[in-house]
Formats: sequence, structure tokens, C-alpha cells
Amino acid sequence: MAALFRSSLRLRSAARLPAARTITTTPHMRASEKPYFPDEPTAPKLATAIPGPNNKAATAELDKVFDVRSINMLTDFSKSIGNYISDLDGNTLLDVYAQIASIPVGYNNPHLKQVASSPQMITSLINRPALGNFPSADWADILNTGVLKVAPKGLNQVFTAMAGSDANETAYKAAFMYHRQQERGGADVEFSEEELLSTMKNQSPGSPQLSILSFKSAFHGRLFGSLSTTRSKAIHKLDIPAFDWPQATFPSLKYPLEEHAQENALEEQRCLQEVEQLIKEFHNPVAAVMVEPIQSEGGDNHASPAFFQGLRDITKRNNVLFIVDEVQTGVGATGKFWAHDHWNLDTPPDMVTFSKKAQTAGYYYGNPALRPNKPYRQFNTWMGDPSRALIFRGIIEEIERLNLVENTASTGAYLYSGLERLAERYPEHFQNLRGKGQGTFIAWDTPKRDEFVGKAKSVGVNIGGSGQSAVRLRPMLVFQKHHADILLESIEKIINKL
Amino acid sequence: MAALFRSSLRLRSAARLPAARTITTTPHMRASEKPYFPDEPTAPKLATAIPGPNNKAATAELDKVFDVRSINMLTDFSKSIGNYISDLDGNTLLDVYAQIASIPVGYNNPHLKQVASSPQMITSLINRPALGNFPSADWADILNTGVLKVAPKGLNQVFTAMAGSDANETAYKAAFMYHRQQERGGADVEFSEEELLSTMKNQSPGSPQLSILSFKSAFHGRLFGSLSTTRSKAIHKLDIPAFDWPQATFPSLKYPLEEHAQENALEEQRCLQEVEQLIKEFHNPVAAVMVEPIQSEGGDNHASPAFFQGLRDITKRNNVLFIVDEVQTGVGATGKFWAHDHWNLDTPPDMVTFSKKAQTAGYYYGNPALRPNKPYRQFNTWMGDPSRALIFRGIIEEIERLNLVENTASTGAYLYSGLERLAERYPEHFQNLRGKGQGTFIAWDTPKRDEFVGKAKSVGVNIGGSGQSAVRLRPMLVFQKHHADILLESIEKIINKL
Repeated sequence: MAALFRSSLRLRSAARLPAARTITTTPHMRASEKPYFPDEPTAPKLATAIPGPNNKAATAELDKVFDVRSINMLTDFSKSIGNYISDLDGNTLLDVYAQIASIPVGYNNPHLKQVASSPQMITSLINRPALGNFPSADWADILNTGVLKVAPKGLNQVFTAMAGSDANETAYKAAFMYHRQQERGGADVEFSEEELLSTMKNQSPGSPQLSILSFKSAFHGRLFGSLSTTRSKAIHKLDIPAFDWPQATFPSLKYPLEEHAQENALEEQRCLQEVEQLIKEFHNPVAAVMVEPIQSEGGDNHASPAFFQGLRDITKRNNVLFIVDEVQTGVGATGKFWAHDHWNLDTPPDMVTFSKKAQTAGYYYGNPALRPNKPYRQFNTWMGDPSRALIFRGIIEEIERLNLVENTASTGAYLYSGLERLAERYPEHFQNLRGKGQGTFIAWDTPKRDEFVGKAKSVGVNIGGSGQSAVRLRPMLVFQKHHADILLESIEKIINKL
Repeated sequence: MAALFRSSLRLRSAARLPAARTITTTPHMRASEKPYFPDEPTAPKLATAIPGPNNKAATAELDKVFDVRSINMLTDFSKSIGNYISDLDGNTLLDVYAQIASIPVGYNNPHLKQVASSPQMITSLINRPALGNFPSADWADILNTGVLKVAPKGLNQVFTAMAGSDANETAYKAAFMYHRQQERGGADVEFSEEELLSTMKNQSPGSPQLSILSFKSAFHGRLFGSLSTTRSKAIHKLDIPAFDWPQATFPSLKYPLEEHAQENALEEQRCLQEVEQLIKEFHNPVAAVMVEPIQSEGGDNHASPAFFQGLRDITKRNNVLFIVDEVQTGVGATGKFWAHDHWNLDTPPDMVTFSKKAQTAGYYYGNPALRPNKPYRQFNTWMGDPSRALIFRGIIEEIERLNLVENTASTGAYLYSGLERLAERYPEHFQNLRGKGQGTFIAWDTPKRDEFVGKAKSVGVNIGGSGQSAVRLRPMLVFQKHHADILLESIEKIINKL
């Protein structure tokens, strides 16, 4: 296979921008597998070098008014379909990055198109409510048949938000209010005069010096509270004032897991001890522990269910809330609807935040005491967007209709096996392959990561990285085995270009 | 007029929930004025006491999953039209609160309906881009013909966001990055090793202890950074950790302005001196001054153009950025597109934030040095929502087609005159009438404010308050003189009920 790719590459560089060519080498469609998108391309198609002339011109135009230095590619969404993303030059790539892991059911999904053209959608777009004051007549129904239909086990309430950062921050606010309410002695205890006066000066006790404990390499967003818990990269944090909050070490597991079971268990134990020590000793008392099931931006760092069960135990016995950030892991990508479903917790997390593939955002909770004791404490003008909540409902319908969580679990297992084979063949390019049994939420480290990601487009694939050295796969839930075949072949092609 | 209202009220309480009745007493439609919504009701209509049985039942249902303690009324948006909002019991109210000042061109505006059903909208709803990485082919055009078409004078760049809070916070982040860049000696100076390491611990110098100066009674949002600049009410802030940032006194003007010119000028001078002193002396250096043109949530507190010119001068000579929060004042409500257009500044603000009536959010800027020196410093997955940017473009088109800023200026002047007459007749209910020449952005203080607002629905009007004692008017831009007549009569009815 590898040799074949190499020759096709030679052909391309010799010919310099040949006419559009479809990159197929083997018959990918399996007889047993029905494609979700009948009109989807059967392979990537390259028409120009990327970026091509149209993309370059459009980027220059956009640069006049909008920062384009992080542009990956300008996209023709009207031509993108299913797992394939199109640019402005006729190039069509297999997309396993999916708008930073946020597209769940494919570009131009026909069911979502119906949802988007429904009278209910049009009304919600042109009559945007202040949800806390004037919710629409159908808001309870939209929640019950959508957002709440997939609520994590044990959590039956939701506070809706706009995106991952404010979902996390409103969860932190709920945690702080709950913590102080307990200290005060219950929901009925009135605020003291001193609290009422000091908070207007941003001073304790009204604005208390409490903290959220997060983990090294964590990513929880970029607004001031969420950024104070984000510890991914300096460039995300530099020059921005931050709260004096504690960070614990996230386990650094060795792979393959089977060969390092005891060592990894000890590592997780060490990290749990650090968490408990910080909760007991950090100078700004900890109201909640915040954790991602898989640290995503921070480099696809995994931990075992035992580690998370340990976290749940520690938070319970120290009377600290346990918040799970499922912004990137949620909505099916790990082969379960929520990644924390893998943990088999005795008691659910206190709050679970979501965004990205939900296409809307918020936090789930179950304990009624997490509703602040008075109205207007957790409030803002819009409190989310019903239009985006309708899209999430459509996504849920599509996930159910097509069994997309199961598809992601089985396609992920298939893809993982293929990657294991590649890792055997190219051990120098595959370190710490991880994500087994986690759907398509798969990553590995590679010494030339940036080069790897950079060359992916030239073989027809849009792919992303995470952390310092990981290639991260974030296909959509409509990613099937025949797409996995193309991806595996493409990865081999990239390796042979390095 | 008053006597007439009183008798109709007696009739109502005697009859107890009569059949739906239209509340009209005088012919409101002026021959010279063409209504923007031909199908709009000509008067409020009350069918039940408010909340009626359907609203009560629906609220109880929603309460099971969503905090309803701040509910004003559940709304049937499909029946709401123009300036009139409908509930689930057949009641239709003249709405001068407009989803907390966020509906610009009327419920079910026909032009917005077209925008909402366009293929471009459907594509943007179902293929939501990560705007910083994969903007759509038409993103530059959507910005140039929408958001940027109405950019404040001197500001030609935009960073798009989701809502007011994150628009303000990303503006703060830009200010902090700019401030440190200047201290460092320019965009080309690399971060020091100490900065790179310390920011990962949330410590200085990488996470510097800089501040944003805001004003007492200000409201800038409720996330952690924005809440640290919000000083409206304790209930907005209690139990939430806050940054140690300075607050200056906002002028407290005496009304009528004509009779207190000298006193008010001295008051503003005193406040400006406090600002400059805080900039020079506060222990956490000030990177920017943040101010609302009219403090809105904080009680509709106004200041003169001279005050804001003074702020601009102080910020310039102290090398501090000047950010204007136009989240509530922007998009026409003060009779100019941006409220700061009233000030005739020599140099524009450094940044202007927007949301609410824009139905999307972000901040404008002009100085290219306010783009952070490296990519991915000001970034998040979605960075706004093109669907909402398309709605803003439709709003702008509608404002231009109908000259709605001019309409708001002239309707506001007409309404203000009517309120002056009422204030003369009922001086005990009208204190500090304010907002003259500020479109329909009008308010006054009244001793029984909560009772006033509470009774408004019983005469067919949906109206809001601000601060401790203000009734605030926030009609839409499609509010016309015949609506002002109904509002004036309704206000008199309410007064006669107190």
C-alpha cells in the first residue's frame, strides 16, 4: 500500500497542479455498510495545491476586517457534505477535525435542513427571547424532547448557555453559591450586611476568595474564570489576569496500557493524593473540582475509570462539588453518549457541562440545592439560544435514528485496530496510541506532529493536533468504516511524505 | 382622561375576568403616520388576569426542569407582532421592555422572516463553523454588509462573540494584551521565560495583576471578568470571586438639567478627577476604562457629552484604553445608531462592544495594534454565530429601509413631551425624568416603582424597571407616535391605580 501512495505522490509533484483528481486506491465501500449520505463523495478530491488561488484571495479580503492568522481554510459549506469539507478551489477533504470536534451528524445533514427550515426555527430566530423572563410557550417541550432527553443519568435540570466557556463559568458560579450557602447554614439564611457591602467592592466575604481546582494541561475555556482553570498552553493565558486557584497533576499514563497496569495505577493514585491534599490545604478553599474525561486541547490525556471514581470519592468526602467538562467529549464521540458513562460512578457528577457537538451549551445538574436560593443570581439576558437548542434536538433525533453512538463505538474499534497495525509498521511515527474503546476519540504522539498535520491536506484529509505532539482524531458521528479505510491509507501516505 | 381610565378599571374589577376586551379610549392612529406593521393590533387586549391559567400551568411544567423564579410571562411568540407581545391566555400587551431591550424591529418582522428562511441562513444553522479556523466563503461579505456596515466612526475591525458578557470580556483581554505589549516594548518582543512559566501557575508576571476601571452602578455582564466590573446590585455579585479592580463614582445628575447646570458640571468634574486619581494610584495598574453611555441596569444614569469627552481625554493622556459598552444603548435606541455618537469625540473610543438589539455580539476596534501579536491569543471554537450575524444584517437593512433611527429620535421627543406633561400633573410619581434627546431611552424615578411595574400588565403594557427606583422605557425601534399615545395613557392609568 505504502509504495503505491508514494508513486502517486511523485506523479503529483511532477505534474504540478494537475486537473482535479480523485484520491482512491482501493475500493472502500463495504457491501455490508450502507452510507448515511448517499450523495457523499467516495474519496477526497484535490483540484489545486492548498490553499488554492481562490482561498488565498478570499483570505486576503477577510484579513482587512477580521484576524485571519488562525485560518485553516476558508470553507464552502454549501458544497460540503457528510464527512467531506470543501474549500473555494474545488478541493474536497475527508474531515476528521470537524470544526474543532463540533460537527456531529455531517455537513448539510438533510434532517437538520428540515429542522432549520421549520416554522418553529424561523420564529425562534426572529423573536429571540430573554429566556429567564419571557420563555416561549414551547421552551419546556424543546428542553424535554431535546437537551434533557439526553441528560446524564441522575441529572434532570439544565441551565442553558451560549458556548463552552460560559457553560463552564456558570457552573462555577453555581458551585460558589452552593458552597457559601452551605457555610452560611442553608438557603434560608439571609446575606449579612457585611457581605452585601463588601461584594460591591469585589472584596471578601461578599466576593469570597474561593477556588476551582483543575488539572495541569486542562482546557476549560478562555474567559476570565474558565481561563483561570485552563492550563493547556502559555499562549492561551499570557497577559490575562487570573484567579489564584490550584492545579493538580493529571495522570501521565504509559502505553500500551496492558503493559504498564501497575505503574499507571500508582501514577493515578499519586495524582488523587495530590488532589485531596490541595483540597485540604490550598489557601483559597476549593468549591469544586473540574475535570475533562479526556483532556482534549491539552494533548488527549486519558485516565482510567478508577481514577475518576477516586475523584468522585474524594470530592464527596471533602464536601466539594465534582464538575465534569464534557464540552469536547460529550454527544457520542467516545462511543457512549457521555464520556463519563464509561466510569460507572456510584453517584453522578454534581454538574456536567456541554457544548460543541450539542451546537448549544449549558450545564446539567440534579441536586435542587444547586439552584441558587434567590432568582436573578444565575441569570443573563439570553441564557442560551432556542434556535441552537432546536438544532441540538434535531441532532439527537438523527443520532437515535441512525444509532450513531453505536456506529461511533464500532467504527472506532475498527479504526483503532487499523492504527495498531500502522503503529507496528511505523513505530517511529506512532507513540502512545490511545483511545481504545473510546469510540473515534483516538490520538497518538508523533515527533513531527506539526509537519504531519500540515501535510494531511495534500493527501486529502483535514486533521488536527492537540497538546505538544499529539495527532487527534475527531471525526463526526457519521464516520463509517469505509471512511476509516481512507483515513488509514491517508495516514500512511502522510508518513511516507515525512 | 384620568377619570375615564378609573371608571374602566372599576368596571373590570366588578366584572371579574370579562370576555377579552380591547383597551382603547381614544383614536390613536394619526393620519400622517403609516404603521410599520399593518396587521399589528391597534391597542392592547386583556382576556384574563395576568398570569392567566394557561401561563400558570405552563410555568409549573417548565419549573420541573428550568429555574422559573425570574419568569415575567411565558410568551406565545407566534402570535406576537410588531410592538405587541402575546401570552398563552389571549392577552396582548404593548411591549416597551422588548426582551430586556433586545428586540429591535418588532416581533415577527416580515423582512427578518425572509432572512430566517433564506438558504444562506439554513446553511449557517446546520454547518456551524469554527470561525477562527474555517470561516465560510461568505463571512467577509456578511461582515462587510452587516456588522461592519454600521461600525462606529473610526473603528473598522471586529471580533465577534456570542453575547454581551463575552463581548466585554474579550475586549478586556485585548486591552490587557495591548497594555503588556506596550510595557514589553512592542509586538515583536518575545515573552520572557518567566512569563511563560508563571502564567501556567496563574501568577505574575505572565498572569499580571492589571485591572479594568469601571463605575459604581455599572453593569457589564455576569461572567467572572465582566462581573468584576459590574457594580449594579449585590444580588448580581454575591458569593462569586472577583478581581481586585477599581471603581469610580459615576456622576449623579440633578434634574431638570437646565436648572442644575453648574452643579452637575461640578459633579462631573469631581468624578473625572476620581477617575484620573484611580488610574494614577490604584495598586493594580489600569489597562482600560469601561463605561456605558447610559448606565442601564444600574438605574438609567446619564452623564453629559462633556463628561465622556473628559474620560476620553484622561484615558489618552494616561495611556489607558477607553472602552464603551454599547450593549444596551447601541443600535438606534437613543436616536443615534450608537449612543456615543452624541458625544462628538475628537478621537473614537478604542473599543466599542455590542449585543442585545444587534442579536449577535462582539467588539469593534480600529487600531491594528489591538490585534494580539500572535494568532490563537484571542480565539475560541465558535467566535460568534453566523446565523445571528445574518439576523443583524437583516435588522440593519430594516433600520435603513424604514429610517428607524430617525423614527426613534422623533418618537422619543414626542414621548418625552408627553411624559413632561404627566410629570407636571403627577409630580409625586415622576422624579428625575431623563433621556431628553436620547430617543426612546427614557426613564424616571418613582417611589412605588415595583408596584408601578407590577400593575402595568393590568392596563395592557409590559414595562420594566432599572436600578432601585427607575421605570425604564425600552421600546423597539418600530415604536411610533400612536404607540406613545397608548403608553402615555397607560402610564396615567397605572398612576391612578397606585
